[in-house]
Amino acid sequence: MDYPEPLGNLIEVFRRLPGIGPKTARRLAFFVLDLPKEEVEQIARFLIEAKDKMRYCSRCGNIADQDLCHICRDPRRDSTTICVVQEPRDLLVMEKTGEYRGLYHVLHGVLSPIEGVGPDQLRITELMARLEESEVSEVIIATNPNVEGDTTAVYLSRLIKPKGIKVTRIAFGLPVGGDLEYADELTLGRALEGRREI
Amino acid sequence: MDYPEPLGNLIEVFRRLPGIGPKTARRLAFFVLDLPKEEVEQIARFLIEAKDKMRYCSRCGNIADQDLCHICRDPRRDSTTICVVQEPRDLLVMEKTGEYRGLYHVLHGVLSPIEGVGPDQLRITELMARLEESEVSEVIIATNPNVEGDTTAVYLSRLIKPKGIKVTRIAFGLPVGGDLEYADELTLGRALEGRREI
Repeated sequence: MDYPEPLGNLIEVFRRLPGIGPKTARRLAFFVLDLPKEEVEQIARFLIEAKDKMRYCSRCGNIADQDLCHICRDPRRDSTTICVVQEPRDLLVMEKTGEYRGLYHVLHGVLSPIEGVGPDQLRITELMARLEESEVSEVIIATNPNVEGDTTAVYLSRLIKPKGIKVTRIAFGLPVGGDLEYADELTLGRALEGRREI
Repeated sequence: MDYPEPLGNLIEVFRRLPGIGPKTARRLAFFVLDLPKEEVEQIARFLIEAKDKMRYCSRCGNIADQDLCHICRDPRRDSTTICVVQEPRDLLVMEKTGEYRGLYHVLHGVLSPIEGVGPDQLRITELMARLEESEVSEVIIATNPNVEGDTTAVYLSRLIKPKGIKVTRIAFGLPVGGDLEYADELTLGRALEGRREI
């Protein structure tokens, strides 16, 4: 059936979001129609405000509401370590561990010949410039554990190592609480490869 | 960690939507930040427009962009049959079957003593007025197959039957393509109860 246009547009808004199918889009549209007018106006304002005010940190590429993000501005962070991640949301997850006190560098993607992403599309020049300008002793590469992530890690390490900077990769293995029986062979292979003496 | 306020607000927008957890909300927020500015502005406009222009049909309670919804306005619909549903989205699903050519009446809820919903909170007075004003020969009750839906169906049939109008309830049983082995007892019970001669 045809929806009246304003409803159709609203459903289409939700359809465009990743991971939202047609039924969920319809449910969300009806949810919004049932909200008080003020709340819908607030949502619209928040959307525009976020897009207007948020930008990427000029140094590390993290999401920021000023020129530098709150991590780059924080003098208590250890500036001799840089953790390289693919996306700003990976940085958020990293921060949640509460285990890392260094700085970050967000690539905004990974090398992917299939999708036509080469080094020039990533923030690699900016990373190399940072390494020239400041005293960095270790670069931790935390791209995803897949072909693209691994390729990017190898590519970066070849660029950075000659500068005498230690390059490490986060460990891959069984997830904590996981079950050996249900682990896939690739994960188990990496877990074995990365074994440590106890 | 703390998000910059505009990002936090944006994540909160998605958190409020039904069925969206914290991780999905974060993912959607980053998705929106990556959209072109014009597209975010369009989304905001569509939200406000939908809320401004959409209302409920003064006759049947369906979603509408005029005083009467497109179904109530359609002269080809059979006005002697009214199908009673809980919500506008149930009506949409009903329409998708393409099997029903009558009119609708949307209750906007069901009787629920636990949640304090009595007959006065539903569009029952409006339904009874419609039955007085027009020639209706059958009312099909299509509330959900659960305690509240069934209670509402019984309540309505007691009100409507004395007027000499036929009241029916949609059939409950095994879903088409379903498997007897995996049916729950309640569904199977209703399927047995509703058996028909072949």
